[in-house]
Formats: sequence, structure tokens, C-alpha cells
Amino acid sequence: MADATSIKDLPSLTGLHQRRNPLEENPFFHPSHGFYITPSDVVLSQVVYDLSDASQPHVAYHRAGPRREILYEPSSVKAAIVTCGGLCPGMNTVIRELVVGLWELYGVREIYGIPAGYRGFYSMEAVELNPKLVHNWHKKGGTVLATSRGGFDLCKIVDAIQQNGYNQVYIIGGDGTMRGAVKIFDEVSRRKLEVGITGIPKTVDNDVGIIDRSFGFQTAVEMAQEAISAAHVEAESAVNGIGLVKLMGRSTGHIALHATLSSRDVDCCLIPEMGFYLEGKGGLFEFLEQRLKDHGHAVLVVAEGAGQEMIPRTESQKQERDESGNLVFLDVGVWLKSALKEWWEREHPKELFTVKYIDPTYMIRAVPANATDNLYCTLLAHSSIHGVMAGYTGFVSGPINGNYAYIPLEEVAQTKNEVNTSDPKWAWVRSVTNQPDFETNFKG
Amino acid sequence: MADATSIKDLPSLTGLHQRRNPLEENPFFHPSHGFYITPSDVVLSQVVYDLSDASQPHVAYHRAGPRREILYEPSSVKAAIVTCGGLCPGMNTVIRELVVGLWELYGVREIYGIPAGYRGFYSMEAVELNPKLVHNWHKKGGTVLATSRGGFDLCKIVDAIQQNGYNQVYIIGGDGTMRGAVKIFDEVSRRKLEVGITGIPKTVDNDVGIIDRSFGFQTAVEMAQEAISAAHVEAESAVNGIGLVKLMGRSTGHIALHATLSSRDVDCCLIPEMGFYLEGKGGLFEFLEQRLKDHGHAVLVVAEGAGQEMIPRTESQKQERDESGNLVFLDVGVWLKSALKEWWEREHPKELFTVKYIDPTYMIRAVPANATDNLYCTLLAHSSIHGVMAGYTGFVSGPINGNYAYIPLEEVAQTKNEVNTSDPKWAWVRSVTNQPDFETNFKG
Amino acid sequence: MADATSIKDLPSLTGLHQRRNPLEENPFFHPSHGFYITPSDVVLSQVVYDLSDASQPHVAYHRAGPRREILYEPSSVKAAIVTCGGLCPGMNTVIRELVVGLWELYGVREIYGIPAGYRGFYSMEAVELNPKLVHNWHKKGGTVLATSRGGFDLCKIVDAIQQNGYNQVYIIGGDGTMRGAVKIFDEVSRRKLEVGITGIPKTVDNDVGIIDRSFGFQTAVEMAQEAISAAHVEAESAVNGIGLVKLMGRSTGHIALHATLSSRDVDCCLIPEMGFYLEGKGGLFEFLEQRLKDHGHAVLVVAEGAGQEMIPRTESQKQERDESGNLVFLDVGVWLKSALKEWWEREHPKELFTVKYIDPTYMIRAVPANATDNLYCTLLAHSSIHGVMAGYTGFVSGPINGNYAYIPLEEVAQTKNEVNTSDPKWAWVRSVTNQPDFETNFKG
Amino acid sequence: MADATSIKDLPSLTGLHQRRNPLEENPFFHPSHGFYITPSDVVLSQVVYDLSDASQPHVAYHRAGPRREILYEPSSVKAAIVTCGGLCPGMNTVIRELVVGLWELYGVREIYGIPAGYRGFYSMEAVELNPKLVHNWHKKGGTVLATSRGGFDLCKIVDAIQQNGYNQVYIIGGDGTMRGAVKIFDEVSRRKLEVGITGIPKTVDNDVGIIDRSFGFQTAVEMAQEAISAAHVEAESAVNGIGLVKLMGRSTGHIALHATLSSRDVDCCLIPEMGFYLEGKGGLFEFLEQRLKDHGHAVLVVAEGAGQEMIPRTESQKQERDESGNLVFLDVGVWLKSALKEWWEREHPKELFTVKYIDPTYMIRAVPANATDNLYCTLLAHSSIHGVMAGYTGFVSGPINGNYAYIPLEEVAQTKNEVNTSDPKWAWVRSVTNQPDFETNFKG
Repeated sequence: MADATSIKDLPSLTGLHQRRNPLEENPFFHPSHGFYITPSDVVLSQVVYDLSDASQPHVAYHRAGPRREILYEPSSVKAAIVTCGGLCPGMNTVIRELVVGLWELYGVREIYGIPAGYRGFYSMEAVELNPKLVHNWHKKGGTVLATSRGGFDLCKIVDAIQQNGYNQVYIIGGDGTMRGAVKIFDEVSRRKLEVGITGIPKTVDNDVGIIDRSFGFQTAVEMAQEAISAAHVEAESAVNGIGLVKLMGRSTGHIALHATLSSRDVDCCLIPEMGFYLEGKGGLFEFLEQRLKDHGHAVLVVAEGAGQEMIPRTESQKQERDESGNLVFLDVGVWLKSALKEWWEREHPKELFTVKYIDPTYMIRAVPANATDNLYCTLLAHSSIHGVMAGYTGFVSGPINGNYAYIPLEEVAQTKNEVNTSDPKWAWVRSVTNQPDFETNFKG
Repeated sequence: MADATSIKDLPSLTGLHQRRNPLEENPFFHPSHGFYITPSDVVLSQVVYDLSDASQPHVAYHRAGPRREILYEPSSVKAAIVTCGGLCPGMNTVIRELVVGLWELYGVREIYGIPAGYRGFYSMEAVELNPKLVHNWHKKGGTVLATSRGGFDLCKIVDAIQQNGYNQVYIIGGDGTMRGAVKIFDEVSRRKLEVGITGIPKTVDNDVGIIDRSFGFQTAVEMAQEAISAAHVEAESAVNGIGLVKLMGRSTGHIALHATLSSRDVDCCLIPEMGFYLEGKGGLFEFLEQRLKDHGHAVLVVAEGAGQEMIPRTESQKQERDESGNLVFLDVGVWLKSALKEWWEREHPKELFTVKYIDPTYMIRAVPANATDNLYCTLLAHSSIHGVMAGYTGFVSGPINGNYAYIPLEEVAQTKNEVNTSDPKWAWVRSVTNQPDFETNFKG
Repeated sequence: MADATSIKDLPSLTGLHQRRNPLEENPFFHPSHGFYITPSDVVLSQVVYDLSDASQPHVAYHRAGPRREILYEPSSVKAAIVTCGGLCPGMNTVIRELVVGLWELYGVREIYGIPAGYRGFYSMEAVELNPKLVHNWHKKGGTVLATSRGGFDLCKIVDAIQQNGYNQVYIIGGDGTMRGAVKIFDEVSRRKLEVGITGIPKTVDNDVGIIDRSFGFQTAVEMAQEAISAAHVEAESAVNGIGLVKLMGRSTGHIALHATLSSRDVDCCLIPEMGFYLEGKGGLFEFLEQRLKDHGHAVLVVAEGAGQEMIPRTESQKQERDESGNLVFLDVGVWLKSALKEWWEREHPKELFTVKYIDPTYMIRAVPANATDNLYCTLLAHSSIHGVMAGYTGFVSGPINGNYAYIPLEEVAQTKNEVNTSDPKWAWVRSVTNQPDFETNFKG
Repeated sequence: MADATSIKDLPSLTGLHQRRNPLEENPFFHPSHGFYITPSDVVLSQVVYDLSDASQPHVAYHRAGPRREILYEPSSVKAAIVTCGGLCPGMNTVIRELVVGLWELYGVREIYGIPAGYRGFYSMEAVELNPKLVHNWHKKGGTVLATSRGGFDLCKIVDAIQQNGYNQVYIIGGDGTMRGAVKIFDEVSRRKLEVGITGIPKTVDNDVGIIDRSFGFQTAVEMAQEAISAAHVEAESAVNGIGLVKLMGRSTGHIALHATLSSRDVDCCLIPEMGFYLEGKGGLFEFLEQRLKDHGHAVLVVAEGAGQEMIPRTESQKQERDESGNLVFLDVGVWLKSALKEWWEREHPKELFTVKYIDPTYMIRAVPANATDNLYCTLLAHSSIHGVMAGYTGFVSGPINGNYAYIPLEEVAQTKNEVNTSDPKWAWVRSVTNQPDFETNFKG
């Protein structure tokens, strides 16, 4: 096994001395045989094989968990926690567990919350955190630390880290935030600071690669059911009623896809990974017309990133670009609603027709994490702590095939998790919804 | 008591013979003393008096409930039920209970559902209903019969009633629908048809007068809490965050008002009954600026009918009128969101600011009724049945000061229930939210 | 009107001077005409009349609300709030609103929470309360002040009131607590202390008289639906399945009755106000046998106080008495479950049979108040404050026919609200469930 | 890779001819490259390795999914579906998806539901199922087919299968049911019947081995939060309050463990896999006394199978054995509640103390599946169908390391999934709850 497997290496701090894990002296834990994780404990990145193909290599990641030897003297730790970007269920649970875990497992006593995202490092006062303060945070949506987009000023941030003496930095945020974390890690290394940097990917869209799924995602799928049910009721209670739900997912359709598979009320699910077209044979209108004819109503779920290239742009929208230089997103739900109305008005001017459009975005992302995600956030935070205490840096924790592992931060920042439309799961969606395979239709 | 009290008379069918209530022969009910309601049983319309004012008259309505003598031979009843207008929690419960009550209490066996609103009378086939079919309907949102707006063609509808031999018609709908019901009642009377017509007011906005409240309203207030909570989380998690929630209420602010009083997360509640202004001393912007300064965030609830006269209209919007000839409604939430952004950009161009706007309308009105409303819908349906069986027509059932009564349909169709901003309850809202009294501000 | 109406007088403090309501000087409120309530504003206690009966007198209560003149100098107020007895949804909302109302409307700054019920007055340290501290309490179930039963030591309590200088005491509790409050009021009067005493009836059972309903009741009925639904699923999924749910209600069956009317899954509802019997013609077993034969399953709701006299008592249970000298309550659900099993085993030993028994008591009473109850608790707390500030004492606030009024405390403590089984509402339950009229059956 | 890996073989039908998958001719699916699964596609059973240990073998299972060649002519399929044992969220979703999948993917038209468990094969009439009938079943708790325990009569069952001509049998049930399914498979093989037998493990306790988790489990953990929250509120609102929640789990503590990790309100979690003791140093009472001293309240979660050997048994209970010959289970919650009361009464007779005991079992298991479980049930049902259509028999579908695979039925029936108390996850529970390590304490 061993020689055929390549293991993803992790950066580690170098200037600190090894010492015994304080759990070792904790009369309470009695770490049993097998409790500590060693560097030879790995998680395979791939579990599905085609045995007829001999050429497949093994890749493995270091398993997450407590190490017998750590690199920090707990009383010298000064940890900073920051949350960046949009809201996602579970952020407060992650913060809470970082605080409780550092405090109770390792005896760390200096833990600071950076308010309002990256800019908080250099423009606001940090908040001292302790278990009593964060006691009920996991029952609240949003982030008590507050968050914001942008504000990434590398130099000012690393200056602030240095000046405040933070030697552990926990960064919770999306892909842009993770790319920022890589830069912070690089700059911290360049300055030869003994600061452990770890990223905790936060993306309700579930668009981060390598890990099984991101926290808050299951809660989002659960909450999306309410919107789909409401759209279904509206559609069913009308004559030729269409219920249209826009769900989160700028570049990936995971929420839309999972919400569709979890519900049974959806007739068609449109995602960014799959092209579609409205008019003509095999198009969406033809499909909906058939559904209305058969059932009298239809429910449509669309991920916010779907069909962007089809939405007509005004001149100013053609110029407007976001911080990353991409064209700004247009509202696919509003566009689709009006396209549907125009189509029907044109084709069936005398027949009743209703489109009810629901955009539940802020009602989904602002709720507290459900039980599944709360548990996930807890294990995630504890994994991160164990890794940082052991001296790893520039890494991310996360579940791989159900087991928590450590992954180089840079790798996570570069990988995207898209829906694989040639996967059986996608075929299943189509079989569940009987929805058209627009791409094949078009080619055909 | 008796002589000082004026009683609201009810129309009654005239061509039928009195007979004993079949409950009388039902071995099961054993109607006890006081079970039957007599014409001298009344409900006072007013319970709050200023005793220093001697001039106040008593007005009373006939109490709802079973009568010892009824006018229909159950086996000759052919009842029609129709739902019109938008969705409202509890519609299916009302339908279900009409069916179950007619069937089980009175032994009626011919009960028909008219699909898709008024137009269903003359353009679609009615659905035969029975207790088994409707068994679980009260657990579903919307209306299984389907509904639509418009389609009111008086002549065709009364022709259809006549041709199909319906002699009881239960009409569930909003104020427009009730005005239609008055016309149907008049036309049916003109044609001397022995058809009992009853209206069941359905308005999630609670804007119908005389009765204590309309069905579905409590459920809507309950559901609105989710949206307000989400807006609160979004606002709290941002720097200078505003959460903006638009709630139903075209001409009245009851949902907004009650949702605000039930929540404690709302800083300001804007309703159609109260003017407000944005700029200048005592205006909304000044108020919000102070709140952001004090708390870092604010939550705003706005009823859809508030501020309509302030929203700039395009030339075409100045022409566009709805079926009743009124100017079309513009989206106060979208307008307010952009007005807020412009204001901040102008006043504080360098400071962070976020407005998160939530429009939960379809997620509120499409849910099943909660327990409170389910019970209400049940008693409402049974009241209606007893009244119709007893020969009343052109009436509405509803709770007055907590007791079910019969009210002339015409009176209900003409009365509007607006929030009385000089009422202590309104003062309470202002005390709860500490929100500005824009009108006094302006005058002052 | 005036001369025919007798008004319920309220005790009032006598040794204090009248002064203007501080709302008067509040630049914010601008109390409009009609904002203040005067002593001649009353609420009629009865709204349903039989006009053929001339002898019915009018009784009225003083309307609750702010008075133009108050008796306390706000800066001299020292208020105490105590919660006694079992949990009920909304307790924290009442506490919160008492604190916020006293603080923000009247400028009171000394507000204390007495911990753990009556005994807290003399055995624990009071907690200083302010709006910031109680900010989120209305979102929590239970009572943050903690509660307990018993501990009523009149002398010690009044001593403590006197020694701590409390001049306003808000007592939240059940019927026993209210009887204690009467004694405190009497003793305070005897000692000639200028202390305003007000009771806020807390009974999830809704067994308090005069007022329309008690706070938390609607939430309890709502939550009971979950248990009934689960019992229904268990019953339906079995062969000859019985789902049995015990709901709160020691001497009254309001929760059971309303939960039954709100649901449609209940076949029979047993309450303390109605006798029933198991065996023989017209008994429960015969009824259930028929239901199982017809539908294959049945759901039974039983209030905890129903059938107490039928449950066999051991010798020790015959002696055991509660604090009030009554026989202790036995668990009717456990007894009924085993009686059902024995009956079936005896009658149909070879046929499958299942009873699933659910006791959701603590899951119902520990939840936060729903929107309806939150609003109620807010208006209730504010009514109480206005009354106490105006100098009323020995009174209770509460809604009468939908309007808040002040009621002598002693009257509330003596009145019981039982289900009136000759009321049409009870007939409606029987019609909804088609359940037997055990009493008539038995006589018959 | 290939040669080091041992693959778990699956039984297969032998007497049928291979034919093309009808999906192949479905104009809709356009099976893309990689859509079909081949026998060489496998899922590794182990993903966590210690690379320092060279001796670890690879074991793999055949991957689940559609095969290009199938063994049944769809028009000749006659499928039977049966549900056995207790309720579990998701049963109806599995049934629904089996029906919809067989009908829509493969064109099967004869699908029968066996009512009321195994006994239904020979004593009741099967119900014909189709997509329209099962349309909304996934929104209902329980099983519409009904279920029962026992009734396993091998000969009668296989006779019935033979006589009715069922050639596919889908058996949904717990471990006893799976052992029965093995016997049916053996007997069917002995009789040389060409009948595909597949088991779908249903255990809300999650005690089935090999697969990642069982359906309904996540829903149960989610629902358990409500009971824990209520117990927490009750405990916090009392003086020395204990909230005690019994959760499902006869031989394994997964629900208790996950519910504890998902909540943050639990002080101690007792499971069958871990011994504990009440009295003395390091015992439960000592721990609780400390918690009450520190926090004033405590919450205890106990799995129903925990501490069975500690509960005193009456003589008759020492004799009573269940169908498998084991001692009957006693109610650990009731016992613990009374043990706690006795302890306190003995140790602190004058101090207040309250234990509120909640048993939410039937309210947890009777709910519909949440989104996560609905999706799982869908993929599970479709996996089963593809396997049976491909000719596999005597197998079970289920997720292994996140990927659906086929597992020999016998292996599943013999394996138990217990909580591994030497696993880091268990250490995490202890760190989260700071609960005692009773076993080490005792030894120490």
C-alpha cells in the first residue's frame, strides 16, 4: 500500500519546539491507544475504482486529529478568528467551537474575534472571546463577528497580525477569501513569522473542491424545500401555473440539484454546468408547454448562475465588472419570469397563465445550522485546532470520503467543485424530473 | 336591553317550507337545552364604551349556529363551492369543512367544487366533492379547487347556477369577490331563484371590516416572523446593515403591524395608513442614521401599500390602471432599497453599507393554516352551513367580539378594516419600536 | 347605557399624589386625542344576549391603557417581578416587556427579577433587570428568572417587599399563585404599604376565568398538533393501531378540545368536564372497536385530568394528597394504554393490536411563544404597567371580548374557566369527531 | 491496484437471458459515456490507512448503478415491496421511489405493496402501486403500506411469492427482517426460483454495519434536538433542574451520540457501548452534583439500551424474554429518573430538585424524512432497482464512503455498527460535554 501512494505534503512551522500535547496530562481524557493521529495516518482521496484500469495512482491526505506532540506552548498562543464574505449557516458554530476547543482542550486563553472581515484586522478593534461569551452562538444565524466583502489589504493585514502578536489565524470565508489566505500565508512565511494560518472554506454553494461538502450546505438544501413547496402550491392552485424558484449557486448548481432531488415537486432544474435554451424543439418552452398540458402546472428551479450568457445586457451591464473582473451577474429569475410571460402571451394570448417567482436567498442563508451541519462545524473546528497546534500551517481541514483530513490551502484555493453532468447523480435528476437533456437535444 | 338595540336584519329565502333540523333525529347529537340558536340570540357589535357619553346606540348581529327549523330538504340540496382571488392559508380547510359539515351534519350528498374561481362556473366542469376526497385537504396550502382573478360574468354565472340546479352557493374570496357575490345575490333574487348565497371573506391582509379578523391572517403573521428574523440576522452580521422586509397589505398594514408587535427585531414599521417621508428632519433617513449609529444595524418592515404616492412613476406607469381603475401598485420594497442605497452613497460614500431586501409574500401565503386558523376555518364553515340551511341568504359568517354572527353580505362588501393610527395599539407599536411619528414630525 | 351598567371597582393606592404621565412630556409620543383611557372607559363582560330575556344586567370592567394622571414618581419606583409554578410559553416575553415598558415608557430604572418563585423573595438575591439584559428573552422558552412551586410564606414575602422597598410587584403564576397574590395584597393593605400589586395569570391550561384566554395557550395548541400528527402516523402505519396522546389540562380540557378542533386526525377527545366509561354499550371500547373496523386505526386525545375517578388507586395513592389537600393525580395516559391492551387481549387475543402513547407535555410547555402569544404577552405586560402606574392595585389585566381590561385580582383568583359541554363549540367537537356523547349514552 | 484487492462477490440469477437496458432506447436519457456501471467498478471499503502498517488488504464492493445489460424483460417483472418492523423516517420515500423508478426507468407495470409486514404475504391482499398513487407519499411519515413485527413464516412467505408470481422482492426492515430476508433468499434459491431478493436496511438507530449510515437517521438526530432543547429549558428554569431525554438506540448509541454532538445543551450522554455507574467517586451522581453546583442545572441524554444491566428486575422481568430469547428491555429513563430523585432526597433532603423526563421516541420516528434523508432514500431505491434488474440477488444497496455499492445480504445481516469508544469522535463527545470517562474512572 505504502509505496504506491503519494501523500499531499503540508507546510509546517519550523521555529518552535515540540512539546507534549496537554491532553496528555489532562486527568479527564485518558487518551486511549489509537487516540492520537500520526503522520502516517492518511485518507485516500479516491474510493471508486475501475479495476480494469491498472494505471490509477493512489493519492492520500494526512488525517486530521490530535497529535501527541504539539508546537505551541498554550499560554503563548494568541489566536485570531475572522469571517469574510456572505452569510452561511454554521459560521457561528465554527467560531464557537474554535473558542471552546482552544480553551478547553488546549488551555489557550487569548482568543480574538476580528470584526467585519479582512478589513477588521487593520481598521477595527478585535473582540476578546471566551467560552461563556460564545455559549449560545451556535443557535444564531449569521456571524456575531460580522462580515464584509473585500477589504483585503495584504500588507496592512500582515502588519496587524505582527503588531498584535497573533500566532494562530483562523480564516473563515469563500474562494476569494481562501485565495487571500494563501497570500497571507505566503507573506507570513516571507517575513518568517511563526504564525499558523488555516483556512475554513465557507461556501453555501458547495463549490469548493476536494472536500466532501462545505458546511451550511445541508441546511441550505433543507431550507430550500420550503420555497419549492410554496412554489408548488402556487403553481397547483392556478390554471397553467408556473412556480419559479431561484436558488443560490453562482458557478455551480449543487443546491439546486440537491434541493430538486430532495423534493419531488420540481419539473425542471437549471444549473450553470448545463446549457439550456428556451425556444424551439427540445427547448424549455416546449417542455413546459407539455407539462402544463399534462399536469396543469409546473415547478422550475434555477441556480443563480444558470443561463447568464442568455440574458440580454444593457450597454452599461456590458461594461460593469465585479472585483475579479468578471461581468456582473444578472438576475436569472427575473429574466426567466418575464421571458415566460412573453412567451405565453405570444403563444396563448387568451389562456390564463401565472408565474410566481420566489427568491428565498436571504431566508436560506441567514438561518442557524441544522443538526447535521452543527455536528460538521464542530468536527471541522476541532480538526483545525489540532492541526494548527501540531504546527501545520497553510492548510485546510475537511472531510474526504467521510474522514477529516488536512489539505494544502493552495490546493483548495485552486480547485472548483462543479456538478459533473456525466455522473449518474445527474442522470438520476433527469430521471426523477424527466427533464430534457437540453444539450443532447440541441446537438440532436 | 332589547328595546335599545337595533338588530341587523338578514335576507332570507321565502319559497321553501320549514322542517325540523335533521340533527334533531340524529341519535348521536342529543341536542341539549341551549344548543339551538334562535333569532333573538344576538352578538353586540360594540363592547368598549365611554360611559360618560350617553348617546351611544346598541347595534347587534344575529348569532351564528344551528337552528331548530331549517328550510332545505337535505336530499334536495345541491351545493357549489368556489374560491376566487389570491392564495390565503386556510382555504382548503374551509372547503373541507363545508363538505364534511354538509355531509355529516345535514346529510347533504351533492356538493360541487367550482374550479379556478368565478370563471369556472361557466367554463369548466365542476368537481364532485365528498368527505373521503377532501380528507387531508386541510394539511395543504393553497386551494385544491384552484383559483384565479377576474372572470366575473354575472349573467353567465347565474345562468350556470340555474342550469346546474345549485341551490346553495358558498363563495370564498376577497373584497372584489364579495362585491361580485352581492351582484350574484341580487340577480338570483331578481330571478326569484331559491338559492342561498353566502360569502366567506378571504383576505390574508385582514382588511375586511366588522369581523374580528379574517382567516389565514394569524398564520401569515406567524410566517412573517421567519422573514423578519432572517432580515435581522443579515443586518446584524453586516456593518451598517439594513434588513428590509416587504409584507402583504395593499390598503392596510395589519400584517406588518402585527408581525412587528410579535417580533422584537423591527426598528420601524411603515404602513399605508400612515404617511412617511424620507429626507429631512424627522424623516426616515434621519431615524435610520441614528439607529445605525446606536446599534450598527436596523430592520425595516414595509407593507406593500405603503408610500405608493412617493414612488416615482414612469409615463407608462402613470397610465396603467388595474381592473378597478386604480393606478397599478409599484414595488415599494425595490424602490426603498434603492433609495436607501442612494442616500447612503450620497451621505457616507466611504463607509460600508448593506441593504438586504426580503419579499416573502409567496412563502407566506402558500403555507397550510396553523392550528389557530384551522380551528377558525372550521367554525367559520360550520357557521355558514347552519345559516344557509336555516334559509338565510346574502350573508357572511364571522366572529364579532369572539362570537360567530351573521352579517349582511352587502355591509361586509362595503366596509374596510384599516389600522386606526389613533388607537392605543398603534401607540404601542411606536413605543415598542421607538419609531418616529412621521405625521406629527412633519406638522411639528 | 350608563345607568344600567354595573362596573367592577378596582382597589387603588391612596397615599400617593397624582402627577402627569411622563408620556405627556415625551417628544416622541404626541399622545393624540383618545390616546389616554379614562375611568369611564369600560369593556362589557357580555356580548351575547338573548333579547327575549329582558332581565340580563350589564356588567363592565375598566378598560386597560395609559392614564393621563399617574400616582408614581418614576424615579421612586422600585419594581419586582416574580414567576411561579410550571412553565408556560411566553413567560419570558412578559418579563421582557415589563422591563422594557417600565424603562422606556415611564423612565423607571429600578427593576428587579425575583428568582425561583415566591421563595426567592426571602431566600435568594434579586437580579437587576434592564432592557439590554432582557433583549432576546422573548425568543427563549421557560423563564430566565427560574421558577418553583410552593415556597409561599406570606409574612416573609411581605417583609422582604417592605425591606427591599419594592413599591410595585408583578406576580406571574397560576391559580395557586393568584390566591397567594390576593393574600399579599391583603397583607400589604393591612400594613398600609403603598405597594401596587398586580397578578398576571399564567396557565397553559387556559383554566382562568373572565379573560378570553391565557397566554401561551395558543402556542400549546399549536405544538400539540405535532404530537397528534405523530400519533396518527403511528396508528395508520399499524394494523388496528391506536395513537394515544395525553395533553395538559388538570381540571379543564381546553388544550385537548382546541387541539382536537385544530387537527382532523382525532377520533375521540376525553376531557375532565365530561364523564366517560370504557365498557358496555356506548362506551369507549365499543366506539373504538367500530372505528378500527371502519378505518383500521384511531387517535385518542385525553386531557390529563380526565377520568381520574376511574383509575384504580393503590392504598398509598388513596392517602397521598397534594399541597391543596386533593388526591394526587394519576397518569390517565398510562392507565388508558394498559386498559386498552387488556381489553383487546381479552376480546381479540389473536388479532394484531398496537397502542402508541405520546406524552408531549414538556416538549409543549418549554417552547418560546409563537407570534400570536408574543403579541398577547406584550399587550398584557403594557396593560399591567399602565394600571400599576395609575395607582390601581390588587388587579389583573387581561383581554375581555378582545379588549384589554382591569379585573379585581380576587375575582380572577376565584373563577374557573371550564369547558361548557352544552356550548355549541362542544357540539362542534362531537360533530367533527363523531365521537360518542358518553353522558347521554349512559343515561340512555 | 487490481490484484491486491479482494472483491465481495454477489449472488446472481442464472436462468434468465441478458438483454439491453431499456434506458438504452429511451430517447430521453442519452446515456453518456461512463453512465453505465460495469462489474469492474468498485468502491473501496476502507479509506483510512496507517501507511506504516504494510499488511492491510484492500476490500472492495461492486459499485451500484445502471448496467448496460439486464436480465429481466420489463413486461415480465412482477415486483413486491414489503415494510417490516418499527417506523423510521423515509420508509414512504423508499417505497415511492421503488415504484417510480421501476415504472419510469424500466417500464415495469406490475408493482405490489405487501401490507403489514411479512405476515401480509400470506394473510392479506397486496395493493397495486403506481406513480400516481404514490405521488405524495414522501411527504408522509410512517409507511402507507403499514407494518408489523414478527409474522415471519418462511414457508408461507415463499409459497406466496411463488403463487403470486413475484419475481422481484424488495424487503425494507431492520436486522431481524434482514435475517429473514437471508432465509427467503436461501429458500428461493433452494426452490430454484428466478426471484431477485434485495434487502433495504431500515434502522433509525443506525446500527447496521458496512454502510455509512441508515436512512432516517439524520432526520431522527434533527428531531431529537427539539426534545433536548425542551429538556434544557426545563432544567434551566428550575432550581437544581435536571433535564433527562431518552433517545432511541437499543444496542447502539448513535442517535444519542450524534444528537449530543449536534446540540450544545447536553452535559452527559450515556450509551450502551459504554458502561457507567451511579454512586461513588467518578460516578454519575458525583458528576451531576458538580454540574448543578457550577451551572444550576444539567441535561442528560440516555440511549434506551444503556445501563440495562443496572436496572433492578422483578422476578417476572427476569423470566420475560423477547422473540430472540433476550431479556426484555426495561425503561432506562423511568429508572434513571427515580434513581436521581432518590439520590437527591437522600443527600440533599431540604434543597429543591427537579427532574423532567422526556421520551420523544414516537414523535421522532413518525415524521417524514428531511431533505437529506429524502435524497438518500431516492438514491437507495434507484440503486436497488438497478441491481435487481441486472440480475443480482441476495444483496443490499448502500453508501460506502459516500458511494453507493452492492453488499451481500448475508454480510449485512451479520454485521453490527457499534459506537467505537476508542475513536476520536467519542473523545470529541467527551471533550464537548466534559463528561466523565466512567470506565477509566472505575479502573482508576
